Amino acid sequence: MNSPSPHLFDEVAIVGVGLIGGSIAAAVKQRGIARNIVGIGRNRERLEAAQKSGLVDIVSVDVAATGSSDLVVVCTPVDRIAADVRAIAGASRRKSIITDAGSVKGAICHDLHGGLRNNSTFIGSHPLAGSEKTGWEHAVADLFENRLCVITPCPEDDRETVQKVVHFWQALGMRTREMSPDEHDRALAITSHLPHAVAAALASMLDTETRDFAATGFRDTTRIAAGDPNIWTGIFLQNAVPVSKQIDVFIERLTRLRDLTSLQDSDGLHALLAEAREERQKLAE
Amino acid sequence: MNSPSPHLFDEVAIVGVGLIGGSIAAAVKQRGIARNIVGIGRNRERLEAAQKSGLVDIVSVDVAATGSSDLVVVCTPVDRIAADVRAIAGASRRKSIITDAGSVKGAICHDLHGGLRNNSTFIGSHPLAGSEKTGWEHAVADLFENRLCVITPCPEDDRETVQKVVHFWQALGMRTREMSPDEHDRALAITSHLPHAVAAALASMLDTETRDFAATGFRDTTRIAAGDPNIWTGIFLQNAVPVSKQIDVFIERLTRLRDLTSLQDSDGLHALLAEAREERQKLAE
Repeated sequence: MNSPSPHLFDEVAIVGVGLIGGSIAAAVKQRGIARNIVGIGRNRERLEAAQKSGLVDIVSVDVAATGSSDLVVVCTPVDRIAADVRAIAGASRRKSIITDAGSVKGAICHDLHGGLRNNSTFIGSHPLAGSEKTGWEHAVADLFENRLCVITPCPEDDRETVQKVVHFWQALGMRTREMSPDEHDRALAITSHLPHAVAAALASMLDTETRDFAATGFRDTTRIAAGDPNIWTGIFLQNAVPVSKQIDVFIERLTRLRDLTSLQDSDGLHALLAEAREERQKLAE
Repeated sequence: MNSPSPHLFDEVAIVGVGLIGGSIAAAVKQRGIARNIVGIGRNRERLEAAQKSGLVDIVSVDVAATGSSDLVVVCTPVDRIAADVRAIAGASRRKSIITDAGSVKGAICHDLHGGLRNNSTFIGSHPLAGSEKTGWEHAVADLFENRLCVITPCPEDDRETVQKVVHFWQALGMRTREMSPDEHDRALAITSHLPHAVAAALASMLDTETRDFAATGFRDTTRIAAGDPNIWTGIFLQNAVPVSKQIDVFIERLTRLRDLTSLQDSDGLHALLAEAREERQKLAE
């Protein structure tokens, strides 16, 4: 009798070994999820340093090195994911599952709709975890613990394959939830993309005269404006329609607050602020 | 030869013994700034508890008890300060200096323009310190250490009196800066009031479907939406004109970000986000 493999997957490849990709590698290793971890990227020097640190087992700047992997997780910038998925499918030498960590799902899923080569399947994922830090040096194995991962299958996707992806994220300690790519993009536009837009617009309001006055409130509300402009330009452009729409909704709400203030409507303003406070307090913290 | 008094003031009265008022009392005591500390408020029970805890020496629900004080600091809600200052001036039995801790200065200073009774002088102040906590129980003596205090004299105010107020806040460990009430209100509209408006509008965007997705970014950007609606309604209404104006400026900037996104203007969007990041990084943290 063969012993069942102790690992969920035989070989996991991480394409894009940054903060997220590196943390996935660390978690896979710590939790014994795969026998082998492959790291793929564009900078050989940084990949070799990651390998030397023990984060990944094998490294390569050639995507063909994912050919032996049964699970490939694409952690490159959102505007490159679809192309990377195609290249990985083209190089696949076994029936592989490809997923990603991209924070926009609609553009990617719609782009890849229609099937991939070599019997590869793509199931979109978005693990909601991270920090403003970048680079594999800041990777931590517990980044995903108790965080939420959204998996966004298309209706025609094989349920067994979807479940394998769900179980992968659960094995990293995540809670999981399935939704359509479009539902995901709307939710993320509101809860992740809009805050960045708002923080950026607010941060840009400062000048030499007012900078001294920025205290804790201003700092906290603009903290995420320090995010990487490369990453966020990509996210906004990939999720342009939902982001634009939610900015418009936000502006309507802020305009209402402004009108209540100008009109000296004390009761109306109090009710609006009380409702906002209630909503904020519902967030577990 | 008389020894000079070791204290900066003989008796300091704090009207409104909440977080700010209580912390001023604690700092005055810790730093030996006055011989005697009087606490005035509306809730006898809470005042007596504060007295019992050693925070203040004498308490009263009657503003007449400030009559013996040479410095009175009004720490009541912004919409009550002007009336409280008049009542204190009316009860004064010595040439007293009255200042405040209100986060809006124009409305108060313009209201009190024209002089007070009994040779009292009012010089507006705004110590930029605090937290979302309320109540004297959360008072801390070091709340003001190295924080900025803005003093907003009117042109006709006696320089010696202004200097006494400046030295008071410096004695609590604060850095000080003088500006006109209107300059102050504009700066605070941008750096303190606008962030609250933005945080509130953002917090109100959540619903049952999206609440699960709110991660660190959303939480941080909306943290201050948990502020007291009573306090913030008062602040917005007292500073209505500058707040409305800065909300409009903010909306213009956010609209520009939205337009760059809809137009898929990658370079323009990147430049905007990079500028915002640069501005945010200038804040020491």
